[in-house]
Amino acid sequence: MAPDPTPARPSRQRPRRPARSDRARMLLSCPDRPGIVAAVSQFLFAHGANIIRSDQHTTDPAGGTFFMRVEFDLEGFAARRETLSQAFSPVAAHLEMDWRLSGSEPVRRVAIFASREGHCLLELLWRWQAGELPCHITMVVANHDELRPVAEAWGVPFHLIPVRAGAKHEAEKAQLQLLGGGQTDLIVLARYMQILSPEFVTRYHGRIINIHHSFLPAFVGPQPYHQAFERGVKIIGATAHYVTAELDGGPIIEQDVQRVTHRDNPDDMRRGGRQIERAVLARAVRWHLEDRILLHGGRTVVFD
Amino acid sequence: MAPDPTPARPSRQRPRRPARSDRARMLLSCPDRPGIVAAVSQFLFAHGANIIRSDQHTTDPAGGTFFMRVEFDLEGFAARRETLSQAFSPVAAHLEMDWRLSGSEPVRRVAIFASREGHCLLELLWRWQAGELPCHITMVVANHDELRPVAEAWGVPFHLIPVRAGAKHEAEKAQLQLLGGGQTDLIVLARYMQILSPEFVTRYHGRIINIHHSFLPAFVGPQPYHQAFERGVKIIGATAHYVTAELDGGPIIEQDVQRVTHRDNPDDMRRGGRQIERAVLARAVRWHLEDRILLHGGRTVVFD
Amino acid sequence: MAPDPTPARPSRQRPRRPARSDRARMLLSCPDRPGIVAAVSQFLFAHGANIIRSDQHTTDPAGGTFFMRVEFDLEGFAARRETLSQAFSPVAAHLEMDWRLSGSEPVRRVAIFASREGHCLLELLWRWQAGELPCHITMVVANHDELRPVAEAWGVPFHLIPVRAGAKHEAEKAQLQLLGGGQTDLIVLARYMQILSPEFVTRYHGRIINIHHSFLPAFVGPQPYHQAFERGVKIIGATAHYVTAELDGGPIIEQDVQRVTHRDNPDDMRRGGRQIERAVLARAVRWHLEDRILLHGGRTVVFD
Amino acid sequence: MAPDPTPARPSRQRPRRPARSDRARMLLSCPDRPGIVAAVSQFLFAHGANIIRSDQHTTDPAGGTFFMRVEFDLEGFAARRETLSQAFSPVAAHLEMDWRLSGSEPVRRVAIFASREGHCLLELLWRWQAGELPCHITMVVANHDELRPVAEAWGVPFHLIPVRAGAKHEAEKAQLQLLGGGQTDLIVLARYMQILSPEFVTRYHGRIINIHHSFLPAFVGPQPYHQAFERGVKIIGATAHYVTAELDGGPIIEQDVQRVTHRDNPDDMRRGGRQIERAVLARAVRWHLEDRILLHGGRTVVFD
Repeated sequence: MAPDPTPARPSRQRPRRPARSDRARMLLSCPDRPGIVAAVSQFLFAHGANIIRSDQHTTDPAGGTFFMRVEFDLEGFAARRETLSQAFSPVAAHLEMDWRLSGSEPVRRVAIFASREGHCLLELLWRWQAGELPCHITMVVANHDELRPVAEAWGVPFHLIPVRAGAKHEAEKAQLQLLGGGQTDLIVLARYMQILSPEFVTRYHGRIINIHHSFLPAFVGPQPYHQAFERGVKIIGATAHYVTAELDGGPIIEQDVQRVTHRDNPDDMRRGGRQIERAVLARAVRWHLEDRILLHGGRTVVFD
Repeated sequence: MAPDPTPARPSRQRPRRPARSDRARMLLSCPDRPGIVAAVSQFLFAHGANIIRSDQHTTDPAGGTFFMRVEFDLEGFAARRETLSQAFSPVAAHLEMDWRLSGSEPVRRVAIFASREGHCLLELLWRWQAGELPCHITMVVANHDELRPVAEAWGVPFHLIPVRAGAKHEAEKAQLQLLGGGQTDLIVLARYMQILSPEFVTRYHGRIINIHHSFLPAFVGPQPYHQAFERGVKIIGATAHYVTAELDGGPIIEQDVQRVTHRDNPDDMRRGGRQIERAVLARAVRWHLEDRILLHGGRTVVFD
Repeated sequence: MAPDPTPARPSRQRPRRPARSDRARMLLSCPDRPGIVAAVSQFLFAHGANIIRSDQHTTDPAGGTFFMRVEFDLEGFAARRETLSQAFSPVAAHLEMDWRLSGSEPVRRVAIFASREGHCLLELLWRWQAGELPCHITMVVANHDELRPVAEAWGVPFHLIPVRAGAKHEAEKAQLQLLGGGQTDLIVLARYMQILSPEFVTRYHGRIINIHHSFLPAFVGPQPYHQAFERGVKIIGATAHYVTAELDGGPIIEQDVQRVTHRDNPDDMRRGGRQIERAVLARAVRWHLEDRILLHGGRTVVFD
Repeated sequence: MAPDPTPARPSRQRPRRPARSDRARMLLSCPDRPGIVAAVSQFLFAHGANIIRSDQHTTDPAGGTFFMRVEFDLEGFAARRETLSQAFSPVAAHLEMDWRLSGSEPVRRVAIFASREGHCLLELLWRWQAGELPCHITMVVANHDELRPVAEAWGVPFHLIPVRAGAKHEAEKAQLQLLGGGQTDLIVLARYMQILSPEFVTRYHGRIINIHHSFLPAFVGPQPYHQAFERGVKIIGATAHYVTAELDGGPIIEQDVQRVTHRDNPDDMRRGGRQIERAVLARAVRWHLEDRILLHGGRTVVFD
């Protein structure tokens, strides 16, 4: 037992703390060269921003690619966003940057695709309700009806779209209609167990996150726990990745593992693996929503 | 994506598999000496049992204490239980054993005590529904009303018993009435945040499991994450233990840990710590329900 | 600082403790059926043995394979070994057992094969000297001369056998001569970086342990850290396995992993990976020497 | 087996890469306020430096303390260091900084204190020889003679200074003489097992790193593994910290842990704990030598 009375903790006088809506972030990548950090931080300072957190990465100081994520507070950011963007454009152009500014846009809209197993869905809903996932979960789409009560208990609309053999195209058409043009910012495959068509994947490029129940690139494809059992591994894993046209081949966002022994059969692995699957997927989704992930070739830069 | 079609897996001819109700286990401890394993396994074989799993531990082969857990299948166990017990009594007496037989009794009845934070409660309910906790969760008792919807969404009765300062005795009286004499086999404190009286603890000796949000024995008492932050540790932990009269001093069942850095303040630790708290508590409860835990002095023997 | 004065710890009267040479173990596998544990423990008890540790595993209680490892103390084991074996033969035959008895034979003779990188070799030598590897390390064989000082500093003969392209057969001939017929019980490939011929592997079937610097089955073959970097994994691994004719395809004994980030290039991985390579290899070698490993198809049963 | 032929990897044309001696770093802390990153990066850019890596941390953007570590390349740094320092002084004064510049000074001189157990000493020597510890290990000082061969095998002078009960002062006098005034930059207590006097500690404030074989603050003082066993913990740990006058109470640099079970007695823990002790200590020493650690109250900021 650990009683946590909430006694008066000594308060200390503090300067005014910026409103939550004044918190913004800038993500950028460009050819590495001297002066990038100086240019960005100087720009932000000149516009009255206070840098809270700054991460950077270079693939090679001499001729590589430079990545940066800056989190900052700027009073009245929402109103000043457009001006700020325009002012930064020449800096960015000079340094040949890919960049984006985020912070005051409407909260992102997330759709969760599921099948029969509810652990990943439940985890996402719980973390969302606990305030750990800054987004709006707009719907749960599933090809079976089992998880309807879970979604509805959390007040999220549930849509059953069966995927009949040989009629995937029809199902995807219905899904796309539900997702609605530009209405959905991220699709999370929470153990959805169906392969999306290349057309579908292309349309949501870089915006579909999947959880695969193996330590990729080991055990690509169906039944990874059976594969793991057959090979006799001593550790199993889970991998969250962006979905690309290549099955289980997209950029890896996060992985985690767990020990198994000769006593564990595929069913034991499936049961134990749930803990890492749900944790890995939830972390990946949070990082995406917090703009911590940059793509670079087939890999990710994940700023912590 | 990892489509798991459920194709016809090759079936193989198998001998008759015993019914689930024929699975039983024997737990015992006694002074170590030669012949214990032989006596027990010989006894079980003679009565037609098939040993599925057997674990043993000795604190010292020469003069220590011997512990054993045997899981076995025996056709018609429920009906033969009494006879079996009587037949084993002289063996046990000769070897000076503490022992018990379990397997066919009604499923155990578990009450969960909670307060305001729902992650541990939700975890227990989820694992229970997923079939990982062999028990009947009879009620949730809380001193605040926030978690009522969570309990009720899973169909478990929720009882609000506020604990007013200086009137703990009254609250415990109401709790005991709810628990009902011999009606409750296990009480799980799922972040209950209140200290139970010695009288209460004594009444449920060895049958109250608590989760403490630190790596015991570090950071006993209130606000362990604040304590951890102040000390500047690089790893935080959670500990599940049996409750005794000594605050956070009971036998440890399970612990787990998680890395933190200088960036994590107590709130970050509280948030991150939830993942290990819920996992550690769920493991401890499962092991208790599967008769895997033996007490020895202030320590536990946990057979895996 | 943690001064560990070695004060007189309270002694307690103890029964006579058996000599180290009286400790023995029996390993066995057979078709599962009721009565195996009873038969073995009854046999050992009848011959005056005291069971210290007993592990068992069944792939399936109904029609599977049963594995058992029993560690026991028996006064005068060395002298009585032959008699014991003869007495157990009919029991084993009746239950269709593969079995072996070990404990009093001369300490096993181990040869280490290495190349240029010394971390695995040094680890084995250190653990051996610290008493953690019950064996005699008879020689270090390497295809480069760099590690000669390491081997010789620990008093182990070092043999340089270069492996010239296209002349592997010659090198292996020289190696086999050094190993000397039945003189070597185990060969440890401590980052040897050469592929042994099928003939060599067959001759030492089940007695060659290799460390591969990836989490198998991911990244088979050369340069696994480069492969891991290219794929963008977030965790790297190391795998100890028995060597078979299939490259990196033998039965896995132990694995471990370590986190990496986008900041780690293949060189960083190589550096960081050394820690897990040496730890994983040392554990695998120890378990082999302690008779904890049983082979079953392409997998291992490892009793802890 | 993983043959790593070193084939010609495709070379690519690259801009001139700066010499190793041109790599430098700046560490600073100051009251947080807007403009610090801009000021520092602008200054470095104006002087021709290319920022390779930059980490920052603030205890609170509003009124807290700001910490920063910048790694950069600057052609001819050694020759320009003094000028650079003078130029930065007014910037630093304006922002009320504690700061230091490092990179071209002579390699730091490290003395290792040991006793009888060699695993931490061996680890440091191995990593030093493998190029992972940028320092000069000038001597091993021990109160017993057992480790002389280890030190000497690696070419490091070994000094035996026995510490007689009641005559610690004498021993420390001899030690200080060996360390030689300003000649030693860092003292590493590699399981030295003796408590240094407050005078000694004060003289090397912030420059003595100790490894304690527990997960501090659990099990302060002597025989932590016995304490851990008595309490029945399920995980043991090791902690590297700066030494202060308070026993085992100094700022924690790094910690790591390892699972134990009811089967592990204090000797098993001591054996198993060696792996984490040596790894934790080596990491802490490396981070110190790479200027990654900043002290803040009784805690550390460790930039990765």
